[in-house]
Amino acid sequence: MPAKFRWGILAPGTIAHKFAAGIQALPDAELVAVGSRALERAQDFAAKYRIPRAYGSYQELAADAEVDAIYVATPHHLHAETTILCLERGHAVLCEKPFAGNSQQAEAMVACARRRGVFLMEAMWSRFLPVMDVVAEWLKQGRIGELRRVECDFSFRGDGNPLSRLLNPALCGGGLLDVGIYPLAFTSWVFGGLPQQVASLAEIGRTGVDEQAGMLLLYPGGAMAVLTCGVRTQGQVSARILGTEGSIEIPSPFFCAREAVLRTPQSEVRERRPLLATGYEYEAMEVARCVRAGLLESPAMRLEESLDLTRFMTRLRAEWGVRYPFDP
Amino acid sequence: MPAKFRWGILAPGTIAHKFAAGIQALPDAELVAVGSRALERAQDFAAKYRIPRAYGSYQELAADAEVDAIYVATPHHLHAETTILCLERGHAVLCEKPFAGNSQQAEAMVACARRRGVFLMEAMWSRFLPVMDVVAEWLKQGRIGELRRVECDFSFRGDGNPLSRLLNPALCGGGLLDVGIYPLAFTSWVFGGLPQQVASLAEIGRTGVDEQAGMLLLYPGGAMAVLTCGVRTQGQVSARILGTEGSIEIPSPFFCAREAVLRTPQSEVRERRPLLATGYEYEAMEVARCVRAGLLESPAMRLEESLDLTRFMTRLRAEWGVRYPFDP
Repeated sequence: MPAKFRWGILAPGTIAHKFAAGIQALPDAELVAVGSRALERAQDFAAKYRIPRAYGSYQELAADAEVDAIYVATPHHLHAETTILCLERGHAVLCEKPFAGNSQQAEAMVACARRRGVFLMEAMWSRFLPVMDVVAEWLKQGRIGELRRVECDFSFRGDGNPLSRLLNPALCGGGLLDVGIYPLAFTSWVFGGLPQQVASLAEIGRTGVDEQAGMLLLYPGGAMAVLTCGVRTQGQVSARILGTEGSIEIPSPFFCAREAVLRTPQSEVRERRPLLATGYEYEAMEVARCVRAGLLESPAMRLEESLDLTRFMTRLRAEWGVRYPFDP
Repeated sequence: MPAKFRWGILAPGTIAHKFAAGIQALPDAELVAVGSRALERAQDFAAKYRIPRAYGSYQELAADAEVDAIYVATPHHLHAETTILCLERGHAVLCEKPFAGNSQQAEAMVACARRRGVFLMEAMWSRFLPVMDVVAEWLKQGRIGELRRVECDFSFRGDGNPLSRLLNPALCGGGLLDVGIYPLAFTSWVFGGLPQQVASLAEIGRTGVDEQAGMLLLYPGGAMAVLTCGVRTQGQVSARILGTEGSIEIPSPFFCAREAVLRTPQSEVRERRPLLATGYEYEAMEVARCVRAGLLESPAMRLEESLDLTRFMTRLRAEWGVRYPFDP
């Protein structure tokens, strides 16, 4: 049996807990280090998940040579800085979504990974869930005929605290970057990319960020995507793919999908694929597979796609007048 | 008991059959005349619904003084011409939706009704269904809190015949006028009008009309509407109203709604309201009520709203490059 794949975790916040629980479900992976700007938080996290090494700074974690990959789980606005810190030390990095706060940050991250020749991937975990293989197979088999429309929403009702991560521009606030990335990445996954033709509208709240938004994407062949996101209103949080001969639904919560439904005028097929743990284990498996194979990126979540997604969101923010302090 | 309300039907097509079946379910209404450009069609229709007078021209029907209102059920592109024909003879008119082919036609119709001092209403029948009273009451009671978003689709898969009414520009083809009017009218009903801020995209097919379209509407307070329509892909054909405290769903087919669901984090309430007949009987009841009360329009479907809806669709078509031969 080969050695276990050794993970370091950078920033032990909410999402890192889910990731850690996912790793614990994998027989061939282990958590070996965690770094926080507060040593005590790192130690608490390490104790909870029996992680041998806890560091009081991101720098120390990045200097740990005995890890195979680092999961960057900071708030969005720190992704670029912390990812580059790890890449520069030669570490493979799985960076939480959204990849970066704006295009410039994303470009710097990708440039660094390429220059250093190390693996980098956006943690678009939903894409790696087992039921997505079922959906991909249905699409490949042409079960819904010609692809015509994607409808996808990720809107929820946050607490509305203007200082919170969700609404603070300095922390990449707004629905687009926090949850809009899911419908966009889903659409990009279905169609193999994002189109040029886009129309959108957003409600900009008192803190200057998008509290809800609608996006229409038109593909050259005439297929469309109709996407919504937001952080102040509960939405459907489901995904549908409509074709000429039928449709596929991924029920709520689609971003953590456990089932998919294929409907045609003649039939309804419901496929269930339970998760091993939290669902974050599948993206971790993909990283381990790629790194062990010597790949510098995942064919299922390429860096060019993360660049496209980030540029797309940066362009939308510009159109909406949503500016972050670090934007050029 | 007062005399029955006497209906004339202009153009005995598919929709006229549904309307006629609706009238037959009403104890205080009757069908007294039908007019078609082909006498035999009028006679067949008259025989089926036991209508005493069948005419081989629209002019003869319009000249029949013994009717209380005429239901105009022609294809869209003839609405203006035939409605004005009846109005000029002093008849109250219920004109099938969409009201008109473009703004100019709608304005001419409304000007004629006002000049002649006769009743006119767009046959937006869905609005008068019994379950809509339940939805209106929920909204009035603030059961879903502050109004935040409407999501509504009317998309279906037509046969794709390029000469058909659905795809022929000369017959007002395209999804917007045929079915997009339903989500737009629903939105206008919920919010009490349409906003200025709109973003949309449409797939224009080989015949030059919109085969599917997405529309985003942003209201001054930040609430949005996310609407889709089309004639080549089956969609959800449902409506949802999202608020800060809950949501209302009108399941498919929302345009012929028999039930509505009110959901909050704590509860789910499902109200069912079966139809007397086809559902078209309720708009007919409204027309009879208004005409008997001496009203020149219905407070529930005002002429200004029909003008707004028509202008909105005319503007969208212009943005999409969808031109009808009779457009100025």
